[in-house]
Amino acid sequence: MHPPADHPIRTPAEHLAAMRDRTPLVQCITNFVAMNVAANVLLAAGASPAMVHAAEETGEFTPLVQALSINIGTPSPGWATGMRAAAAAARAAGLPWVLDPVAVGATSYRQALCGDLMAFEPTVIRGNASEILALAGVEARGRGADSADSVEAAETAARALAERSWAVVAVTGPVDYVTDGARAWRIANGHPLMPKVTALGCSLTALVAAFLAGGGDRAEATVAALACFGLAGEQAAEGAAGPGSFAVALIDALHAMTPETLERGARVSAA
Amino acid sequence: MHPPADHPIRTPAEHLAAMRDRTPLVQCITNFVAMNVAANVLLAAGASPAMVHAAEETGEFTPLVQALSINIGTPSPGWATGMRAAAAAARAAGLPWVLDPVAVGATSYRQALCGDLMAFEPTVIRGNASEILALAGVEARGRGADSADSVEAAETAARALAERSWAVVAVTGPVDYVTDGARAWRIANGHPLMPKVTALGCSLTALVAAFLAGGGDRAEATVAALACFGLAGEQAAEGAAGPGSFAVALIDALHAMTPETLERGARVSAA
Amino acid sequence: MHPPADHPIRTPAEHLAAMRDRTPLVQCITNFVAMNVAANVLLAAGASPAMVHAAEETGEFTPLVQALSINIGTPSPGWATGMRAAAAAARAAGLPWVLDPVAVGATSYRQALCGDLMAFEPTVIRGNASEILALAGVEARGRGADSADSVEAAETAARALAERSWAVVAVTGPVDYVTDGARAWRIANGHPLMPKVTALGCSLTALVAAFLAGGGDRAEATVAALACFGLAGEQAAEGAAGPGSFAVALIDALHAMTPETLERGARVSAA
Repeated sequence: MHPPADHPIRTPAEHLAAMRDRTPLVQCITNFVAMNVAANVLLAAGASPAMVHAAEETGEFTPLVQALSINIGTPSPGWATGMRAAAAAARAAGLPWVLDPVAVGATSYRQALCGDLMAFEPTVIRGNASEILALAGVEARGRGADSADSVEAAETAARALAERSWAVVAVTGPVDYVTDGARAWRIANGHPLMPKVTALGCSLTALVAAFLAGGGDRAEATVAALACFGLAGEQAAEGAAGPGSFAVALIDALHAMTPETLERGARVSAA
Repeated sequence: MHPPADHPIRTPAEHLAAMRDRTPLVQCITNFVAMNVAANVLLAAGASPAMVHAAEETGEFTPLVQALSINIGTPSPGWATGMRAAAAAARAAGLPWVLDPVAVGATSYRQALCGDLMAFEPTVIRGNASEILALAGVEARGRGADSADSVEAAETAARALAERSWAVVAVTGPVDYVTDGARAWRIANGHPLMPKVTALGCSLTALVAAFLAGGGDRAEATVAALACFGLAGEQAAEGAAGPGSFAVALIDALHAMTPETLERGARVSAA
Repeated sequence: MHPPADHPIRTPAEHLAAMRDRTPLVQCITNFVAMNVAANVLLAAGASPAMVHAAEETGEFTPLVQALSINIGTPSPGWATGMRAAAAAARAAGLPWVLDPVAVGATSYRQALCGDLMAFEPTVIRGNASEILALAGVEARGRGADSADSVEAAETAARALAERSWAVVAVTGPVDYVTDGARAWRIANGHPLMPKVTALGCSLTALVAAFLAGGGDRAEATVAALACFGLAGEQAAEGAAGPGSFAVALIDALHAMTPETLERGARVSAA
């Protein structure tokens, strides 16, 4: 059941409840490393994943979903064609979609692909500081998928990118930063073990798409997804003996997360 | 050592022992989400996985294996060519093979691919209710890889599909249904956490192929694989804190499963 | 900080410390089963993974990394092109790179691909006994990715292959064997649960690349990586209930491994 029309969806807790209420079908075109983890993150959080990437079927499939997530992590020509087709279908259908420009600064191939995808106007862009700096056209120091720049160093670039592109821009790191160009937030949830597990950032991108499908303001939905994921990370770290058991506990924590817990644990502030 | 020729392989426990006795090499062409999980399920259960998908080598490789599992989960033209080549090689070699028609109702691309593969006469077809209804040509309500139809609603379609295609048809859900057109069974093992972990159905398809390689009646082997997997799920749920720890414990439970435990725990009835 | 130039990197413990000190960026072109596990193994051990495989970008990307790992596990023409391009770029840049010839004896397609890659002079070749025997041109009995030959049976072939190819050759199994043609070592670390988890051998290949990036003698670096991985396996087995919990604990153990622990636990002898 959807919340009544007069019930606002504003806080992270309200966004989580609205997403769960809809159990959104989220199409993910993501990299080979993240595919399993992203699907399990969506299932644990209360969404339904659909890993469909081929250009041969995405035009027919994308209009059936509630949101789309595109992560360019392991790109190749066939996959790039599918990404463009899906992004085009999402824009045509008015669906929210999220772009994750993995290591965009590393090669001209990734830069060209992200340029193509930006033309389809992503609803949200999520990356680490190096990726957002690179996408914004600023010299960045990223290596592979890891960031060599601080979130703070990317804030001005993120705001400019949001203004120029219409997209909400989320820069994730020890403290995340989200902006729609006019407003901005910082989310202080998370744990140092998170970057020690591969594909968690990619999975978070898919979770942002799920939260967008729940409705409400797209920037606030993005903030909610980041707070929810980060808080689950904090809870997972409590009993973890290292990144292996941490990754398992993170899925358990997302599944056990309630709006009440998120209400108490979200550390969001205006920036 | 193989059981003596006068020893019947009939019960789930006997099928598990026969499969373990052979340690069958099972070729899996599966989707990107399931690849790691399916391989670990086969290893834990006592089979040997071989993830070989390219048309360039499958004609040479398939005759070396004892069974084949094809899951269309993340299809694309290159993979579809490999699937057709492998199915053709399996039929030519007289090998058992299992078809998993993931989300076949969702796009015409998947329907055409499954139509191609059906021509190679799968030994077993395993899907959820929506997939079996779609494959049988009945209007279904599946979304992505999740089922929106009940197992019961698919029983008549499953029986008709089995009669028409020669294949054993397995519809999995809260209570599974297996039929070869003449006989039918219900398997009441399993746990509600299973659909909260991605790729478990895909992995079960590979396990069915392993059990087929153990010999005996193909419908009874299918029933045995479903009972074994479902019972492992029940055991895994006992100490699990959520879908993350449940997925880990499921692999442990498959590895620890004995014919005696399966004998006591299998809940199979004629339908 | 790098160790002073007068500090030798000889023992496994010194190699681990040197690798961690550099946090090497390791490009991995690996199979679909191993991709996630290999990335988590590298992160847990202290390296930084980069899963980049497309020919469209590897020429630009490979010169940015510190080592390359190529595993042919799930080959296809597009991936083979990327592998050749990356190996060529690594050789041109003078970077260490490791070849993992998965199931090379199984099909002529894999043999031809490994032949191509050998021309780019891998720094290290890591495989099981059947794979090393096949690569050395000796009749082997491997099935899929599992070995049907003993490590001892492959030692002569390994030494001949090392002499002929310049590569260090590592044969892994219950007791590993490493040779550069002149010298040889046996590493007696490891646990019987390791072959019950898929893709651990593939992940070890990536870890060898990371240790090569740490500097020192390439054969000794290979020995160190094998000892480190095997010892982590022994520690992981202590509390494991089966291959599922073992795989999780292995990542935790790699993350917790210290040079001091490795110093005490490595079981390396001259062969």
